[in-house]
Amino acid sequence: MTAPTDHTDALAPARTKARTLISVDAMGGDKGPAAVVAGCSLSARINPDIAFVLHGDSEQLTPLIAKYAELQGRCDVRHAADVVTMDDKPSQVVRTGKDTSMWSAIESVRTGDAAVAVSCGNTGALMALSMIRLRKLPGVNRPAIAVLYPAATAQGFNVMLDVGADIKADADDLMRFALMGVSYARNGMDIAKPRVGLLNVGTEEHKGRAELKEAYDLIRDHASDAGYAFVGFVEGGDISGDTADVIVTDGFTGNVAIKTGEGTASLIGARLREAFSYSILSRISSVLAYRSLMRLQQKIDPRRVNGGVFLGLNGTVVKSHGSADATGISAAIKLAAQLSANQFNDKLAARVAAALPAEGAAE
Amino acid sequence: MTAPTDHTDALAPARTKARTLISVDAMGGDKGPAAVVAGCSLSARINPDIAFVLHGDSEQLTPLIAKYAELQGRCDVRHAADVVTMDDKPSQVVRTGKDTSMWSAIESVRTGDAAVAVSCGNTGALMALSMIRLRKLPGVNRPAIAVLYPAATAQGFNVMLDVGADIKADADDLMRFALMGVSYARNGMDIAKPRVGLLNVGTEEHKGRAELKEAYDLIRDHASDAGYAFVGFVEGGDISGDTADVIVTDGFTGNVAIKTGEGTASLIGARLREAFSYSILSRISSVLAYRSLMRLQQKIDPRRVNGGVFLGLNGTVVKSHGSADATGISAAIKLAAQLSANQFNDKLAARVAAALPAEGAAE
Repeated sequence: MTAPTDHTDALAPARTKARTLISVDAMGGDKGPAAVVAGCSLSARINPDIAFVLHGDSEQLTPLIAKYAELQGRCDVRHAADVVTMDDKPSQVVRTGKDTSMWSAIESVRTGDAAVAVSCGNTGALMALSMIRLRKLPGVNRPAIAVLYPAATAQGFNVMLDVGADIKADADDLMRFALMGVSYARNGMDIAKPRVGLLNVGTEEHKGRAELKEAYDLIRDHASDAGYAFVGFVEGGDISGDTADVIVTDGFTGNVAIKTGEGTASLIGARLREAFSYSILSRISSVLAYRSLMRLQQKIDPRRVNGGVFLGLNGTVVKSHGSADATGISAAIKLAAQLSANQFNDKLAARVAAALPAEGAAE
Repeated sequence: MTAPTDHTDALAPARTKARTLISVDAMGGDKGPAAVVAGCSLSARINPDIAFVLHGDSEQLTPLIAKYAELQGRCDVRHAADVVTMDDKPSQVVRTGKDTSMWSAIESVRTGDAAVAVSCGNTGALMALSMIRLRKLPGVNRPAIAVLYPAATAQGFNVMLDVGADIKADADDLMRFALMGVSYARNGMDIAKPRVGLLNVGTEEHKGRAELKEAYDLIRDHASDAGYAFVGFVEGGDISGDTADVIVTDGFTGNVAIKTGEGTASLIGARLREAFSYSILSRISSVLAYRSLMRLQQKIDPRRVNGGVFLGLNGTVVKSHGSADATGISAAIKLAAQLSANQFNDKLAARVAAALPAEGAAE
């Protein structure tokens, strides 16, 4: 339905004009290829504009795909004999992983067949392979993983990055994270002018580590050119609040924060189930409350905001949870399709290059 | 009921033999002295073995105390004309805060009148005043703030430290945090052999920052002597899990983690209320579920695990939330009374000194 533009991409094959092609690593998740194929079928049912190239053992995949009417004619299989396991070391996968489904899935993005790859495999290996095969965008020193975190904002979640691509980040890196997060919020979540906050232990300007004070100034100075609002330092409580749409932090802190939040949510869920099974009266009330509780679960369900995204590379890679089921995979594919349709990575590349000409030249 | 020991303390006044005296800053909280006095009365009702010295404006405090029968004869007032506000800078309070209720509350610990002080005032100022007036224990380079975090453990929560006394910690500091956290878990929570975990972004030994790998070895090597079990690296999800009883981290990461957890819990609570007010059926079910929900709230209520404790000083200071109400204050006082009754700080001092003779001598 979109009007044709002057911007054409000579490398993209003709088929992507009709449908957005998503490259999917079918083998990496804890729940195996059946869950991945089921997730693809969920997405295919909802979104007629996408098609898939599935990477993995064709003998396993072909019968799984045959089960779903909506996948017929929209699902190519690219055979890969090997699988990256959760225990494989990233350095080893980079050296010897050529025959894995993960490698093959990234390869489809590198060659331009697909704009976005989706995998629920080993995060470290996926990041390492993405870095080596797709390479960093000009102007980016450290790529980042961005997640959507449930929040009190209008859109229901915030973007947080980095949550674990690397364990550190200097002031320049944090500044680039802000630019990348803003591009993501704009193209993945339709927020025209995202609010950016820099994670710290207090909101006063004099608090926190030296690199954070430096990053504060850099992020503030780029706000006007890059079209975002800088709200200054934010605290852990603001990650789920309505203070900012984009939370910028280093990968160590971000990783601890999301895992703490997930753990806390899971503890509360367990306690809620205990509370409702305590007595006959509470069990009756839980039956009556069933729909309310399901609505709650949908709002805070981590599977629905599941897509961690690798930013700062020549191509986009969406990381789904290792334990993702069909719903989780489908959410990751939906995100991949939206980013792909918005030509997100081209815009991000242009933004980072424009904001940082000096560093860009040094790459 | 305890047998007399050879260890006597010449500085402790005779009155503490009968009742444990708690020093309370009555003025610092957001809810004013009325909430603090109400919290003292709640504690006094439950625990006949405690008495109070309340610091603050005697004209305000005397009529408030007069309201509660259980506080009569158990509550001395020490007049202090000034109050530390939430906006006061710690450095300024240290220079000019002699007439504040916070200073006066810490002074009662410094002179040995009370073993533990409780305040819900400005954290930065409380930490700075505690450091300057009580001074660090021999062998401690960085004091720490420890909190109780709701968790899936038998006792219902874990100890996490540091959550913001300082923004950094080297390997030696993290090692001391482990020892201090173990003493706290043993004396404040009755865990004979606490399990200690070191917070990181992965549980593999090769992951994370250099100082964490060094701290890993130090904490492992002291486990046997200090009577704890070292479970190795833990992740953010383990803070609320059942992997460890004591979570060791630097003050920056710990502060972000607890605020992220609190924010997430608060978001879930808000969504739960929305879910139950959505339709007539869900409103009826919420009435039936009332007791179940109250039971849940009691288990995860931050007010009940409210007492952050400053560890590593010559005397113990319990920091309650600024927004604590009577229930929150009462929980902080209960913790203070237990630590005081167990002569916690003497044991902690002995433990740190025994484990680190070399560093202790350098202090």
